[in-house]
Amino acid sequence: MVIGKQETLLIIGDSVTDCGRAYPIGEGEGNMGNGYARNVQALLDMKYPDRRIRVINMGISGNTSRDLRTRWQTDAMDLKPDWVSIMIGINDIWRKYDQCLHPEMKVDLDEYEKNLRWILETTLPTVKGICLMPPCYMEQNHQDAMRADADRYREKVKDLAKEYGVLYADAQKDMDEYFQYYPAVYMSWDRVHPNQVGHMILARALVNALGFEW
Amino acid sequence: MVIGKQETLLIIGDSVTDCGRAYPIGEGEGNMGNGYARNVQALLDMKYPDRRIRVINMGISGNTSRDLRTRWQTDAMDLKPDWVSIMIGINDIWRKYDQCLHPEMKVDLDEYEKNLRWILETTLPTVKGICLMPPCYMEQNHQDAMRADADRYREKVKDLAKEYGVLYADAQKDMDEYFQYYPAVYMSWDRVHPNQVGHMILARALVNALGFEW
Amino acid sequence: MVIGKQETLLIIGDSVTDCGRAYPIGEGEGNMGNGYARNVQALLDMKYPDRRIRVINMGISGNTSRDLRTRWQTDAMDLKPDWVSIMIGINDIWRKYDQCLHPEMKVDLDEYEKNLRWILETTLPTVKGICLMPPCYMEQNHQDAMRADADRYREKVKDLAKEYGVLYADAQKDMDEYFQYYPAVYMSWDRVHPNQVGHMILARALVNALGFEW
Amino acid sequence: MVIGKQETLLIIGDSVTDCGRAYPIGEGEGNMGNGYARNVQALLDMKYPDRRIRVINMGISGNTSRDLRTRWQTDAMDLKPDWVSIMIGINDIWRKYDQCLHPEMKVDLDEYEKNLRWILETTLPTVKGICLMPPCYMEQNHQDAMRADADRYREKVKDLAKEYGVLYADAQKDMDEYFQYYPAVYMSWDRVHPNQVGHMILARALVNALGFEW
Amino acid sequence: MVIGKQETLLIIGDSVTDCGRAYPIGEGEGNMGNGYARNVQALLDMKYPDRRIRVINMGISGNTSRDLRTRWQTDAMDLKPDWVSIMIGINDIWRKYDQCLHPEMKVDLDEYEKNLRWILETTLPTVKGICLMPPCYMEQNHQDAMRADADRYREKVKDLAKEYGVLYADAQKDMDEYFQYYPAVYMSWDRVHPNQVGHMILARALVNALGFEW
Amino acid sequence: MVIGKQETLLIIGDSVTDCGRAYPIGEGEGNMGNGYARNVQALLDMKYPDRRIRVINMGISGNTSRDLRTRWQTDAMDLKPDWVSIMIGINDIWRKYDQCLHPEMKVDLDEYEKNLRWILETTLPTVKGICLMPPCYMEQNHQDAMRADADRYREKVKDLAKEYGVLYADAQKDMDEYFQYYPAVYMSWDRVHPNQVGHMILARALVNALGFEW
Amino acid sequence: MVIGKQETLLIIGDSVTDCGRAYPIGEGEGNMGNGYARNVQALLDMKYPDRRIRVINMGISGNTSRDLRTRWQTDAMDLKPDWVSIMIGINDIWRKYDQCLHPEMKVDLDEYEKNLRWILETTLPTVKGICLMPPCYMEQNHQDAMRADADRYREKVKDLAKEYGVLYADAQKDMDEYFQYYPAVYMSWDRVHPNQVGHMILARALVNALGFEW
Amino acid sequence: MVIGKQETLLIIGDSVTDCGRAYPIGEGEGNMGNGYARNVQALLDMKYPDRRIRVINMGISGNTSRDLRTRWQTDAMDLKPDWVSIMIGINDIWRKYDQCLHPEMKVDLDEYEKNLRWILETTLPTVKGICLMPPCYMEQNHQDAMRADADRYREKVKDLAKEYGVLYADAQKDMDEYFQYYPAVYMSWDRVHPNQVGHMILARALVNALGFEW
Repeated sequence: MVIGKQETLLIIGDSVTDCGRAYPIGEGEGNMGNGYARNVQALLDMKYPDRRIRVINMGISGNTSRDLRTRWQTDAMDLKPDWVSIMIGINDIWRKYDQCLHPEMKVDLDEYEKNLRWILETTLPTVKGICLMPPCYMEQNHQDAMRADADRYREKVKDLAKEYGVLYADAQKDMDEYFQYYPAVYMSWDRVHPNQVGHMILARALVNALGFEW
Repeated sequence: MVIGKQETLLIIGDSVTDCGRAYPIGEGEGNMGNGYARNVQALLDMKYPDRRIRVINMGISGNTSRDLRTRWQTDAMDLKPDWVSIMIGINDIWRKYDQCLHPEMKVDLDEYEKNLRWILETTLPTVKGICLMPPCYMEQNHQDAMRADADRYREKVKDLAKEYGVLYADAQKDMDEYFQYYPAVYMSWDRVHPNQVGHMILARALVNALGFEW
Repeated sequence: MVIGKQETLLIIGDSVTDCGRAYPIGEGEGNMGNGYARNVQALLDMKYPDRRIRVINMGISGNTSRDLRTRWQTDAMDLKPDWVSIMIGINDIWRKYDQCLHPEMKVDLDEYEKNLRWILETTLPTVKGICLMPPCYMEQNHQDAMRADADRYREKVKDLAKEYGVLYADAQKDMDEYFQYYPAVYMSWDRVHPNQVGHMILARALVNALGFEW
Repeated sequence: MVIGKQETLLIIGDSVTDCGRAYPIGEGEGNMGNGYARNVQALLDMKYPDRRIRVINMGISGNTSRDLRTRWQTDAMDLKPDWVSIMIGINDIWRKYDQCLHPEMKVDLDEYEKNLRWILETTLPTVKGICLMPPCYMEQNHQDAMRADADRYREKVKDLAKEYGVLYADAQKDMDEYFQYYPAVYMSWDRVHPNQVGHMILARALVNALGFEW
Repeated sequence: MVIGKQETLLIIGDSVTDCGRAYPIGEGEGNMGNGYARNVQALLDMKYPDRRIRVINMGISGNTSRDLRTRWQTDAMDLKPDWVSIMIGINDIWRKYDQCLHPEMKVDLDEYEKNLRWILETTLPTVKGICLMPPCYMEQNHQDAMRADADRYREKVKDLAKEYGVLYADAQKDMDEYFQYYPAVYMSWDRVHPNQVGHMILARALVNALGFEW
Repeated sequence: MVIGKQETLLIIGDSVTDCGRAYPIGEGEGNMGNGYARNVQALLDMKYPDRRIRVINMGISGNTSRDLRTRWQTDAMDLKPDWVSIMIGINDIWRKYDQCLHPEMKVDLDEYEKNLRWILETTLPTVKGICLMPPCYMEQNHQDAMRADADRYREKVKDLAKEYGVLYADAQKDMDEYFQYYPAVYMSWDRVHPNQVGHMILARALVNALGFEW
Repeated sequence: MVIGKQETLLIIGDSVTDCGRAYPIGEGEGNMGNGYARNVQALLDMKYPDRRIRVINMGISGNTSRDLRTRWQTDAMDLKPDWVSIMIGINDIWRKYDQCLHPEMKVDLDEYEKNLRWILETTLPTVKGICLMPPCYMEQNHQDAMRADADRYREKVKDLAKEYGVLYADAQKDMDEYFQYYPAVYMSWDRVHPNQVGHMILARALVNALGFEW
Repeated sequence: MVIGKQETLLIIGDSVTDCGRAYPIGEGEGNMGNGYARNVQALLDMKYPDRRIRVINMGISGNTSRDLRTRWQTDAMDLKPDWVSIMIGINDIWRKYDQCLHPEMKVDLDEYEKNLRWILETTLPTVKGICLMPPCYMEQNHQDAMRADADRYREKVKDLAKEYGVLYADAQKDMDEYFQYYPAVYMSWDRVHPNQVGHMILARALVNALGFEW
């Protein structure tokens, strides 16, 4: 597992990451929220207590990649993490649909890419590693407009991870397998916020990308 | 418009009808809930104040056709309505998906049909008219499993309306037109509970079936 | 219907318009309040989804025409609406009665006219159209002092609409018809705030003035 | 003043009497409600402390004369008052208007008279005296339908007081004088529930009928 | 009665005056608090509606004469009353006892006199009249230390009223008569805050000093 | 100290004992209320931890000796205490004053004596010891009517303690000494409920009667 | 992994299991509580979605083995689980210390063993398998009295698991390893309720005993 | 007893002192919190009412000696106490364990000593006396890591008290005796916050150090 002794992992994103974490800093028992970030902290500390790893949840509900870029300095860089995990983009897409009368609120794929590139280039010089997680959409039908968008954004995340040589943790793939046995609506009633199984899948994708062993 | 002087219209169904109506009886200002039943009452009273029509909302959130049948005597017959409007079925379908570990909770098409037939035959002898509204599902894609189910249940409602010679108000058709211009997620974030536009569409479908003129 | 594609209709007034709308801007599902503004939005979007019209509720409880003038720049002009609907004046009158020890709080007909003229002249150059709605008073007796006042203010609104060539939507006339069948107290217990039927009547008056067809 | 040493005055009626009194028995500091009953208690005890009079408020919001008759035994007779003051009837009338779709809820003048006669005849044998107060309606215009009704019910109360030889306290007359200087809406926004001035007028009418001197 | 048409009476003091009045200005229905100020307003308006008198309650709980002096300009002078009624001093005394470890919190008789003189001399030039009410202490025993103090402060108020030729309303005298029939503890459980009878006695003392007739 | 190993002390009385204790049984950390019973428990357990004494608070606010007698079996006998401490009587007296219109609510000295005798005779056969505490009244002036009453009830308690040979703990004497330096109002604003100093005085009186050493 | 298709796993115990689960039955998203039971459900469903396993949390805070036995029929047998996991005993021990004045509340090792035997023998005939988890105590020092007790109870659980041939999942061993790197107080401030890391350790112990692979 | 007439005792520390005291200044009935500070005030005032001693509780939950030093000027010196009692240090130690990932939060023995020296040297010139109370840890086992730390900090406090010639009140010693009869967990479930017995022990230690006699 790549995270070393007394190193810090900062997990950042939108409401899927946030999940009711403590503000302004989501760190420590009771402050991690109810989502995958809590599971990641518990899994790492369960397996590697000797490393005394700090995990910090800095997700904010409703965030797009544009919001993430705006608060990157204060909410990521200033906390001086050794490792950063980023899952962003579902709101970039969602706003196109649920705020369709306000087209200025969506973030299209071009801007999304630029925001991610800016974040990667800003962060890489100061950290030991980054893990990119593509946005997940809990819909089985790839012809669905939002799912099709999510697939395109996800492809972009994958390309950027490759290009910049950073870690890549694809929970969507695991969820798609899950949808062979359960309807997607069982995991998420709005197709964006997963149930506890979904959060465990997200956590597994991330820790496995970090080299975790059960 | 078919409802006459001092006659009563009872509207019954699930959460789409309920919408926070007063209990045990949803009648009168502030007691109609926030959904289409309120609009129906306002539209009828606006246009036909001389008829002094009473509108009663007896929807209960989460109801299936099985629940409706169980409470039919006390919640419909005992109130001695002149007219009855029924919109039921989306939970008959939904439970198949969101409670997939509890298959006893869903109501399949056969039982759905039997429940509706029982309700129709119980009610017809005592009322002046019935209006059947098929369950609506706010999803554009007809290949979606729940939408496909909803289409089958809707077809059944249409057939029963024809067979029993009762009124039929199909809001799904109007919603489908709407989805040509707006993504379905804009009308409903869980594809079952519509926004205010959806509730106005439901109200229009019902009052138009009754012969309402603007 | 006069409102075109992607145009904005701003509805402004007092508590009859406000009805618990969201602050600072009343736009979008759940933010329109419980009154006629919500019905207007639902009716327009139900019928003309292809136009993707934005409706904004900027009513504030307790407002007189004097208050409206004070906040006109920030609360109307700065939002750059294409169309504006104004219903104001009942508090201009009411304060004469319920604050009779504080005569500085009422707005007499002269000042009311001046305020409306200022608003019309300020707004006309920047919008595609304006609709004036006279204040309504839910009292059948025209000899009642407040009803008599309301009739005078209403006449003034009608004259101004004619003079400035703007739309005019008279819900009082519809309500008076309604009062032939129902006591006014049935619509409003304080003669100022209507029930849901009254709000549907207000909405119909406004959308009909805009050329709406059911 | 007619009430003697250690005698009890029971005041009963509807919401104008109730005013938030304590349940089940409205007696003692903090339990009298915010209306005229509190003023009556304070005035009598201020002037006649040597008599140690007990005043009990048994008003219940929404009551008609029909309700009063139903609960008369438990809520009046069982408390063995020496004196009883009754103000009832405004809801007998109001229900005719605000519940016009439910005509079974109003109490017409014939039944009103019968209820009062029954109450008087039941009570007179066991008490030292009764004071009848007619229902008040805070509307200046005698052509108003509810005011006209109130005047008829009031006339009936006056006749019954004469016929049975009981005290009669007419606050409506005092209010009508008040309305020469203030609009009725200043005293009551729904024309039924008075402000503190109205409650002082009601109290004065009652205590003056009892022979109170300031 | 000395207060003329459209004149204003400002009532100021401590918690006995305050009684939960509205802040910052205690004027109008529902804003007068639950004490004697409300009764004064109701009595004056009941009897002299043609004068349209405004009554303002500016009491603040816990105030001593020192506090009153500090806020006199903003809370009394700036409101430009025609008449002012002042009841202050019980906290000047009480603090000597209940804050006996903090002697700087009490206000002794000398300072009390100076504060009242300053208030009188500041106010007299701008108003039509002032009424002084001595602080009341609900204790029958004149040997009780606080009662003895209250008697001395009361004597001082009486002397000042005479010296400055202002009205004087002594409710303590009426209360003492009351205590011949009721134990003081019946009127007040802490000997400072009266029950509703006490507040009616206070109101009567004040309006009688103003020349009120029932 | 007389209480032995693993014995139980039940403390019973009115609101001075109750002080917010847990219901139905006031035993254990956080369940003793905020008054002297908590101090007694803490003092005994601090000094005699080897005895593992159980202390139970069974006070109920508002109780008179009549109430105590009524619930004696269930609230005292059934708990099988080894030792019982009783402080009752202030409400027996208080009701005479604050409920002077309801003379049936007070308990006069004769009945008080009978109630205590009944309690003593019922209890003595089953316990190792009883401690009687007279009711305290926080008033320095012995001519005050309630203080005079309290002194008579206290004398009676003293006599009964002597006659029955039970322990007697007189906190009133200690409080009277305290009142040489502090006004009584400093200890209690209603003369019945003491501050924390008063509760420590009560606790000391009781534990000293039991033979406690600091 | 031993649990097969559409089988049910019932997890039962005390507050460590309960963790705020839904009542009366803790099953389904949002109803599992915040503890290890939720993790178990998420892990099993993540890995084996094709098996559609139902997990039910029936823990109740404060339970001892005596309580478990009392409710075993209704809370375990009646739900007809295929598999049962039991973690009980820490309250059997804790009551000995925190309720040391009430020795009847603790459950000693003999009764503990009898209770477990009764549960095992009652359950084995109707289920496919049982997993026993010993109570955990988050204290590093084995000389600590409660830790020593916990070790004895744990040994007993281990023996019974062997004797009855059921699964055994020992999280205490994993926690003891954890305490080599972290102080026990970091995992639990009262040594009984673990943090999220502890709950993940508990979940891992249980699912590993069932044959889970990551 | 060393505290003289009208002198002030300021008690300062962490949550064991704070116990819900009033902010910003903890003085007077109802403002002392629920802990030993309240007992100290009650004991001193019970025994020495003639001295009229003021006791002020300035504890703040979570404080370390570092925090105490930071706020010493405003929270201690500015209040000009005659006597100061200080109990600090348990958080200096606790943070080492419960915040072991944030080593900057603990205060080691060297800094603890420096902080106490600074406080002593700053305070001694302006007060009549200081009492040092060592931090208590409710654990019987001296090999426990936190207990061992607490013993070292306690030894340091004792040495400093001797070196500076100030009073020293060692409640830990009394608690250790108590633990011979009760398990420590009975006094405190987190080993830091004592029950009421513990607070009485703390109070006794302090007042005895001041020369108190029961």
